[in-house]
This record gives sequence, C-alpha cells and structure tokens, in this order.
Amino acid sequence: MPQPGHEIPAPLLPTDGAAGSRAAPPAPEPSAAERARTIAATVRRGTLATIAVDGSGAAGYPFASTVNVVADEAGRLLTFLSTMAEHTRNLSADRRASVLLAEEVPEGADPLALGRLTLVGDLQPVEEGERPAVRDAFLEANPQAFYVDYGDFSAVRLEVVAVRWVGGFGRMGWVPVEEYAAAQPDPLVRVAPGAIAHMNADHAGSLAACARAFGGVEDATEASMTALDRYGFDLVAVTPSGRRATRVGFPAPVDDPSDVRVAVVEVVGRARVVLPG
Amino acid sequence: MPQPGHEIPAPLLPTDGAAGSRAAPPAPEPSAAERARTIAATVRRGTLATIAVDGSGAAGYPFASTVNVVADEAGRLLTFLSTMAEHTRNLSADRRASVLLAEEVPEGADPLALGRLTLVGDLQPVEEGERPAVRDAFLEANPQAFYVDYGDFSAVRLEVVAVRWVGGFGRMGWVPVEEYAAAQPDPLVRVAPGAIAHMNADHAGSLAACARAFGGVEDATEASMTALDRYGFDLVAVTPSGRRATRVGFPAPVDDPSDVRVAVVEVVGRARVVLPG
Repeated sequence: MPQPGHEIPAPLLPTDGAAGSRAAPPAPEPSAAERARTIAATVRRGTLATIAVDGSGAAGYPFASTVNVVADEAGRLLTFLSTMAEHTRNLSADRRASVLLAEEVPEGADPLALGRLTLVGDLQPVEEGERPAVRDAFLEANPQAFYVDYGDFSAVRLEVVAVRWVGGFGRMGWVPVEEYAAAQPDPLVRVAPGAIAHMNADHAGSLAACARAFGGVEDATEASMTALDRYGFDLVAVTPSGRRATRVGFPAPVDDPSDVRVAVVEVVGRARVVLPG
Repeated sequence: MPQPGHEIPAPLLPTDGAAGSRAAPPAPEPSAAERARTIAATVRRGTLATIAVDGSGAAGYPFASTVNVVADEAGRLLTFLSTMAEHTRNLSADRRASVLLAEEVPEGADPLALGRLTLVGDLQPVEEGERPAVRDAFLEANPQAFYVDYGDFSAVRLEVVAVRWVGGFGRMGWVPVEEYAAAQPDPLVRVAPGAIAHMNADHAGSLAACARAFGGVEDATEASMTALDRYGFDLVAVTPSGRRATRVGFPAPVDDPSDVRVAVVEVVGRARVVLPG
C-alpha cells in the first residue's frame, strides 16, 4: 500500500509491479487531468465551500454545505441554488467558492484512500438564455431534483480557477486548469463496474496470467481486478510473499465501451502465449 | 411534502397530521440541537472547508476537502490531518474552518431532503497530553484509519463558534452554540433502523392504527414508519386522498434503547383501545 508522507506529482508514477515487468514498458494510465474529469463526470453529490457572511458568529469563516451538480463539456460544474440556503447568501457577497466531489466510499474503506477533486472558482449566475439547457442537463443527472423549477432556485456555474486532485494516499497534485478543461472523462466509466465484476467472477485465472505476463508479478497465484479504464486495468495479485498491486495496459486505448470485451480478451490471449500454462 | 421557500425556526413545527389529531397534543420531537448532536454523533465522513493559501490560483478561496471525524462529549469534532494535505497548509495560516456532516443518502433520494449539519469554528491542535485519548476515540469510530500513528498526521479539534442545522427542505436554522453543546444525541439512534424495519415488516396494521388514533390521519388504510427517536416516531400514512406524513409521540421519552420495544407496544396497545378494529 502506498505510504502517505510524500507528494507524487501528476502524471502518476507507474505501480511497482509494472515498473519491474520483464515483458512490457510501464503500463499507461489516465493522467491526473483525465482522472479529475472522470470524477467530475460521474459524481453528482458535492460539498460547496463558500465564505460566510451571516451574523450568527460565522462571518468570514469558510462554510461547507450540500449541493447536487452536473459537469458541462468543459468540466465546469452546474448547480441550482435556493435563495433560502445559507450558501446563496454567502455567494451574494462573494462569488468565490469550491466544490468537493468524492468517489463513493465502499463499506469499510477509508475516504482518504479514494479519489476526489476540489474545483475552485467563481460561482456565476447562468444567463437566462442558457437556463433551459442547463436545467435539462442538471435534471438528467439528478432526476430526483424536483425543485429546479421552483422560483427560489436559480442556476449557477463554477468558472474554474484551480483544480486540486487527490487519487488516494500520496497521489495528489494541482492540475493546470487548461489541462483539466481539455481532458476527457474516461469513456469506459459506465461499463467498468460490470466488466470488473465479470472478470473477477469468471476469469480469475486469466487475471493471474496477466499479472505474471505483463504486471511484473511473476509469482502471482491469484489476481483480482480493482479498476479499469481506457488505458488498461489495475490488479491486486496474491503471491507467496503477500499481495501486490500492479497494472496491465491495453495495446491501444479503448475509446468505445463496446470494445472493452475484445480488448480484455486480447490481453488475456497474449498473456497465455507469453506464459503458457 | 414540505415546500422549500420559507425557513422554519427550531424547534420544528409539528407535522400536519399531529396538529390535526383529535386524540393527542402535537407529538413531541427532538429539538434542532438534539438532531444536530445526533448527526455529529453518527456521521464519520465529513467535508472540511478552509481558506486556501496556496499559490496555485486558489489563494483566498474557500477550499473543500475530505476528512474523517469523531465528535467528543460536547459535540466538538476531532480529526487527524496530514501535513501533506492542502487543508493543513491552509490551516497553518488561518485556523477558521467548518465541517459539513450529512446523513447518508439512500439510493434515489435527494441529499437536500436529508439532515445535515455545518459546524463552524477554529481547528486547534490537540494538546499532547490529550492525544492518546483522542486517538483512541478516533480509531474506535474510524477503525480503518491506520494512518493515525503516522508522523505526518496530527490531531485537531474544532472549537465551535456557530452551528447550522438543516433538516431537509424548509427545515433549517442556526442553533445556539450553548444549546448544541448541552444537547444529547438521540439514545435510540443505533437501534432505530432495526426497530423500523421490524415494525414495517411485521406490524404494518398496528402502524395504521397508530396513524388513525394518534396521528390525526383518521382515514389511514396503511402506514409505514420512516423515523424513530426517543420522543416518538414518524409515519407516512396511505389514505384514499393520498399519502400523509404524521408523527406519534411516546407517553414519555425513551432514554434506554432496551425500552424501545415496550414503548412501541404500549403506543400500539393504546391505539387499539382508542380505535378498536
């Protein structure tokens, strides 16, 4: 497990396993900007930080509150805020804000081990002409948000001035705003959970072969997939000396979710050729 | 469903159903301070807001980040922060902060409909002599937090200066700090989910009788329990004209979790007497 205590700048260092592989160069993986855009494209529930103006002893303090969001095509967040909410009063005096988006925490896991993203910027009103499109995008992502058409709710957009991404313990960095805006969310993010579950349930032996052939874990006896993206997949391999994390790359990036199966089958086939048996 | 658009000061207004009851005065319920303390006592994963000092374009902006917490006996939050984290750098320049704690969001629900709490205050280092006790309390609440003993993590406590509680749409207010500190978390919070599941699975008819006898919903044909606390329980009743929310109080507050069963049986028994059949 990576140790906290030192910052690794983006792009990520290859995992130990891939670095020691005899069969392949370090496996490619998403950039920090891409990982950040993937979080922005998938996480709908965020926490907004504003600067409090209210007289209840909180004036000048940073103030955290709940928001639902959707990201636009440049990764800027859109939300609807009520005039009744404290954050809206705060923003009327100071537009500066940030929004934390955090990956969902599995039962028993630590939130600090998971990916999250702080988008820092100015929350500006959406112009009237844009409101219908923003409303539709927001409602598609948040179908439970019946309140968007209430008179006290209005649309705002976070104009991003800084991007802080954390991938887990010891993996973090500021992402240049232009890189963030230009990057694409991972195209496989919707299909990855199903693909991972399928591989772990039915093809554990193939994953161990991949860990041995391409992951640099030559004594892997078992392996399970923990992540999948357009560039490849992460494995945790079991060895006689303990568990090791590694990564295996696809021969070429997989940009179409319907190509995932073929790409994985190809990697597994190559692993069987490289290391028969 | 309550409409957003106006603020109801704490303590909460009685529900429509209880207000119209023919058989009982408005059902008692937890104060805003008690509800806030219950959230603080149960939610472990929060969002910290600080004021950014870093030079990456974010200086002066409020900055939202992830923390794990535990509350002490006065509802003050304790956490461990890493020197590698951006929020720690921010706090070294300005101790002002807030932490949002939000109730877990069931699948399909809107986070804005659920309870949450913003504790605003100054995050101060825990004195060395207190650290062992703080560490133990934090680890008991966050057993996955292996990092507490790492050299770059240190304990801090939020000295609360303001408390903002939101109970859902249209239910919100600032809670006086002294009330918050003096209030107690609901003693039934750990047993409530099991009790609610049991009543809904096996005693739906009794709940409908409670809604008719004590909830002011005289034409209730069915009812399900949606919340339970020391003062009583919330029901959603089905009637020929639609669903109605109501509340039924216990004869006396239930301070011991092992007394919940007896208290509910007593209310149900009285309902059967008031409205036989």
